[in-house]
Amino acid sequence: QGTRDHPPAQAALRERLLSAVVSCFKRHGAAAIDTPVLELRDTLMGKYGEDTKLIYELQDQGGELLALRYDLTVPFARYLAMNKVTNMKRYHVAKVYRRDNPAMTRGRYREFYQCDFDIAGQFDPMIPDAECLKIVHEILSDLQLGDFLIKVNDRRILNGVFAVCGVPENKFIPACSTVDKLDKVPWDEVRSEMVGEKGLSPEAADRIGEYVQLHGGLELIERLLQDPKLSQNKLAKEGLGDMKLLFEYLTLFGITGKISFDLSLARGLDYYTGVIFEAVLLQQENEHVEEPVSVGSVAGGGRYDGLVGMFDPKGRKVPCVGVSIGIERIFSILEQRLEASGEKLRTTETQVLVATPQKHLLAARLKLISELWDAGIKAEMLYKKDPKLLKQLHYCEDTGIPLAAIVGEQELADGVVKLRDVATREEVRM
Amino acid sequence: QGTRDHPPAQAALRERLLSAVVSCFKRHGAAAIDTPVLELRDTLMGKYGEDTKLIYELQDQGGELLALRYDLTVPFARYLAMNKVTNMKRYHVAKVYRRDNPAMTRGRYREFYQCDFDIAGQFDPMIPDAECLKIVHEILSDLQLGDFLIKVNDRRILNGVFAVCGVPENKFIPACSTVDKLDKVPWDEVRSEMVGEKGLSPEAADRIGEYVQLHGGLELIERLLQDPKLSQNKLAKEGLGDMKLLFEYLTLFGITGKISFDLSLARGLDYYTGVIFEAVLLQQENEHVEEPVSVGSVAGGGRYDGLVGMFDPKGRKVPCVGVSIGIERIFSILEQRLEASGEKLRTTETQVLVATPQKHLLAARLKLISELWDAGIKAEMLYKKDPKLLKQLHYCEDTGIPLAAIVGEQELADGVVKLRDVATREEVRM
Repeated sequence: QGTRDHPPAQAALRERLLSAVVSCFKRHGAAAIDTPVLELRDTLMGKYGEDTKLIYELQDQGGELLALRYDLTVPFARYLAMNKVTNMKRYHVAKVYRRDNPAMTRGRYREFYQCDFDIAGQFDPMIPDAECLKIVHEILSDLQLGDFLIKVNDRRILNGVFAVCGVPENKFIPACSTVDKLDKVPWDEVRSEMVGEKGLSPEAADRIGEYVQLHGGLELIERLLQDPKLSQNKLAKEGLGDMKLLFEYLTLFGITGKISFDLSLARGLDYYTGVIFEAVLLQQENEHVEEPVSVGSVAGGGRYDGLVGMFDPKGRKVPCVGVSIGIERIFSILEQRLEASGEKLRTTETQVLVATPQKHLLAARLKLISELWDAGIKAEMLYKKDPKLLKQLHYCEDTGIPLAAIVGEQELADGVVKLRDVATREEVRM
Repeated sequence: QGTRDHPPAQAALRERLLSAVVSCFKRHGAAAIDTPVLELRDTLMGKYGEDTKLIYELQDQGGELLALRYDLTVPFARYLAMNKVTNMKRYHVAKVYRRDNPAMTRGRYREFYQCDFDIAGQFDPMIPDAECLKIVHEILSDLQLGDFLIKVNDRRILNGVFAVCGVPENKFIPACSTVDKLDKVPWDEVRSEMVGEKGLSPEAADRIGEYVQLHGGLELIERLLQDPKLSQNKLAKEGLGDMKLLFEYLTLFGITGKISFDLSLARGLDYYTGVIFEAVLLQQENEHVEEPVSVGSVAGGGRYDGLVGMFDPKGRKVPCVGVSIGIERIFSILEQRLEASGEKLRTTETQVLVATPQKHLLAARLKLISELWDAGIKAEMLYKKDPKLLKQLHYCEDTGIPLAAIVGEQELADGVVKLRDVATREEVRM
């Protein structure tokens, strides 16, 4: 349940998609690493908040207690700490596992691919962070998924907002997870969850509401930097200062048109410590809708400066920022689009079919195909002793093989091969 | 235990190796499929003989009982049966899991890659089987692993031998697994295991010994086809007839020089029904050794015509033949060779580092690198506001980046970029 086989057409589409993502990661100078699907159970515990219950555990068959990895970020942090690596730009494309309620049509599975790019190391502020956003922008543009928006916020700004609105510090995390729902439900529902379930005062909730419904660009950052309350909060000031720097860098990258500083963005995971971001695809604009509506997150990430330290015996920190591309959702979209277009994706790369028009010519086919393979040419033949020529040509049409190399009795006698263009039926002897 | 992280240098070497294997599979017209790492426990049970105890099981957390796949062959057979596919040429490169005793120096891990190529379908005899051997030959030649030998046998011939030597049918499988040890221990040890543990009569063992120590080529096949006892056995005769056909096809492929018909080859798995084969690397010949000695199996496979039927509710069979490349052992060899050569493999593909020779030029770097990325050029910069030029050039040398694009105050004023060849120090303004 919640897993699936990929038949050739899907595997080919996935290969195309992953290779577009990986080539972007390589364009930004990332190296690949690989870590096991199995991690020690202890490594994963206490990293995912409420979602820890979704971790797949292996049966105790003697030896270490194991679990399947839940994401690629925690294994990356474990890898850095274990190998005392303090500086690394890496990508990792691999499967992760979650005992979640599957929703296959929306691309939610129990086994799914993640494509992560992360930069670890002590650097000057916001330069690697800006690169992560540039990467999201490049990938979503390359894949031509339609209009998109990248929402950006900072955990320090959010915490500053909670502080100046009178939320006690032990309620920052619950308040955060409630704010995160603002992209799905209207403010008054979020407000009543804050007051009801999370036990915030109505006044605090109202004050929070004034902030978290704001979104904009540089001018909003400037305004909040002047905000009489927020500007008094150290964390918020730091966060806003860095957000301003980020927007400067994004302006130099020429991508601010798709970026929105959005105070309602909170992100679920506990380990974020600074900038957070999330990319959403926008529905096609139409006359009846004033603002384009988000149809779902396709990338997300942020800064997590404390995670590596959790795995180091001396608690040594390695600052990290990274992005994860939501490949399954994008895959679903591309799959539906391909289906709608009626286009048939080739599942093989075969260049030529070796064919014979008469009987008793298997030996000639085997000799020729062997020569082609040895010359690096992608070639197939039917596994029959005496297949009909029509059947061989139909096979080309069915599978998209563009050429047939035909050896008949005449060709054998003349020491030539007849090369046929399957689509145009043109033939040359060579 | 028994798993490992792949740091960038290993990941790069592995990518190179896998891409050589996959490009051979594609050259032979195979399509990719992917199946989940998780399989139903029942799917895996009863397929691996004694090794079933090595399967990793997941904890029962509610829902289906799951296990990690043990190989790629059983999931492939399950896939064919589930989707009623009767005809397919596919490859699959993925990790499999075995709770085995790890022996890391020899490339034996609990999590490891398999690279499988299989042909499913009802075809004329030995044509797909011959292609599998051609593939092994191509891959081992391409990778330049040194001299190798592909041993070939047929389960039907082995069973025929047991029958004519007076082994009762219920002892075929135990006898088979004892014969399989002949590549590691001498005949008299194998003989005493047969008589002692497996309970065969000394006479039967001696008769078996006369057959299973034979190896050769076409002439041996011809001789056995004339063998007064063996030629009377239906199974053996069928197997020998097909073996002769296989050698004809391999002659047309021009690869019989590396093929040995070897009656001691048995292979462990229960599911083989016809041709079986195994490729071994040979030690460098030297004067003191008469015959080159095998240093380990690097590929293996065979025909399994009954496996798909085990997953079909009506038991419908789909004949299959396939090969698995022992990528971990090959990887160990390449790794050791790379280490010995002192060659440093690049872990990134970066073409150019964007650098500045004075302070306060971060904006210029960000603008230029963004242009390069947008033009599809693989570019990096240091994540520092004002890095020293020397440090930037050292970074190029350390990571193998061939070019530096330098923008200083002069270049900015002139509207040019200085492109520097890191190795030769030659510079051009452009």
